[in-house]
Amino acid sequence: MAPVRLLVAYDGTGFSGFQSQPGQRTVQGVLETALARLGADPSRIVAAGRTDSGVHALGQVVSGERPPLLDDDALVGTLSRMLPPDVSVIDAAEAPEGFSARHDALWRSYVYLIWNHTAPNPLIGHCSWLVKRPLDDSLLSASLQSVVGTHDFSSFARLRADQAPDRTVLEASTRREGALIAVTITARSFLHQMVRSIVGTAVEVARGRRPVDWMPRALEAKDRAVADVAPAKGLTLVEVAYAGLAWRRSAVTGWPFAPGAGIERMVGL
Amino acid sequence: MAPVRLLVAYDGTGFSGFQSQPGQRTVQGVLETALARLGADPSRIVAAGRTDSGVHALGQVVSGERPPLLDDDALVGTLSRMLPPDVSVIDAAEAPEGFSARHDALWRSYVYLIWNHTAPNPLIGHCSWLVKRPLDDSLLSASLQSVVGTHDFSSFARLRADQAPDRTVLEASTRREGALIAVTITARSFLHQMVRSIVGTAVEVARGRRPVDWMPRALEAKDRAVADVAPAKGLTLVEVAYAGLAWRRSAVTGWPFAPGAGIERMVGL
Repeated sequence: MAPVRLLVAYDGTGFSGFQSQPGQRTVQGVLETALARLGADPSRIVAAGRTDSGVHALGQVVSGERPPLLDDDALVGTLSRMLPPDVSVIDAAEAPEGFSARHDALWRSYVYLIWNHTAPNPLIGHCSWLVKRPLDDSLLSASLQSVVGTHDFSSFARLRADQAPDRTVLEASTRREGALIAVTITARSFLHQMVRSIVGTAVEVARGRRPVDWMPRALEAKDRAVADVAPAKGLTLVEVAYAGLAWRRSAVTGWPFAPGAGIERMVGL
Repeated sequence: MAPVRLLVAYDGTGFSGFQSQPGQRTVQGVLETALARLGADPSRIVAAGRTDSGVHALGQVVSGERPPLLDDDALVGTLSRMLPPDVSVIDAAEAPEGFSARHDALWRSYVYLIWNHTAPNPLIGHCSWLVKRPLDDSLLSASLQSVVGTHDFSSFARLRADQAPDRTVLEASTRREGALIAVTITARSFLHQMVRSIVGTAVEVARGRRPVDWMPRALEAKDRAVADVAPAKGLTLVEVAYAGLAWRRSAVTGWPFAPGAGIERMVGL
């Protein structure tokens, strides 16, 4: 049957990550159940980013088989009524034959939220990391900047045995308004726990627990033991880009979940 | 004993409002229990805004009796360890003799968040109102503008029998980034359900269900039946101002919970 792509948002708090696992509540499991009930083959679901347990998404892209007899609007409406309140299907669109949300992605953007205050913010506690010690914005920014480009990210990832450690980071920037800091990291693709390891380690520099040149030294070390991993709940997948494919409805709101300003310059990639 | 003022934030989702009620979980109840355990007289707690069930706060101010033997930092630290995760004490400070968080407030600012998209945003569903029909920003803004000034707000409030209906709105503005709209309304004081009635009615105009001059006509009608009331969960108390009293730690983050730009012009009040 015809392939379809879905633009999906979820609060990761109540999920054991995106990917199906026996006996666990997963985003994939919830989507598969709904699509199967509509008559599609659920075994063909592929996500752009297989987000970990507790990680959120506002711009996840999922490819799969279109259920029969439902056009884009009917599919969005029907899925919206079937899905639980912590998952939202924002848009549906035709996909090219053989399309894979994972393999055809040009880049992915994640936003990591830090609430940098002595007291928690109860309205965003589920999607941000509380860092009580004041962070030095320029140290945070400089540390992040040092991962931009193509590097061996062995220090900043959980690598599978057969996996190449090189990745290309297109953008790593930070923006603050009051106590809220949003770190945006964009790459063609990411290794497992890569964003959380970059953010966690850069925060150690910015709160003065590591020397100012720690990030480039950590990259060179190629040793996972040097990285600190930020908690999953601060991380949100905000955008995935594909050549020539647009959406009618857009997922990402502005601040604090906007992809970085640099993103428009990458459209030519 | 010495009076103290507290800067308090909470997620209103799990509370039956601020004010103590028998058999209900309230913010006041949770604070009173903690203060009583620290040896203060909890019966003297007064809040700047007695927020309704489901309404949130990032800048609520509470006055009361200081527990013995605790300075400002020790009080914040001790309360933080005692309180549940949906309540946060941000700061504590000395208050003038006879200070009342309610009666001494110069003005209060509320932010009402609207998620204006066909699909829900699962990350902010607990603190925003999902309005699916596209809202006309200029109609929303013009409708809000018509309540600025001193008016009889009988149409936009649940009045107690003995209550004067006149209130002075200092600011009513709107700002959008993508699908997220933040309405900021500031007044010296508010009537019950006044912000939600103003927002709910302005949204009816902005989505085309009411004529463009509906707000001034509704004000003139002095009839509660003409107003639409927006849901409680979109509303957050973001700031309360007092003459000559500052905080060492600040509650309000930037967008979308910032008080309006107009606020600084009011400092001379």
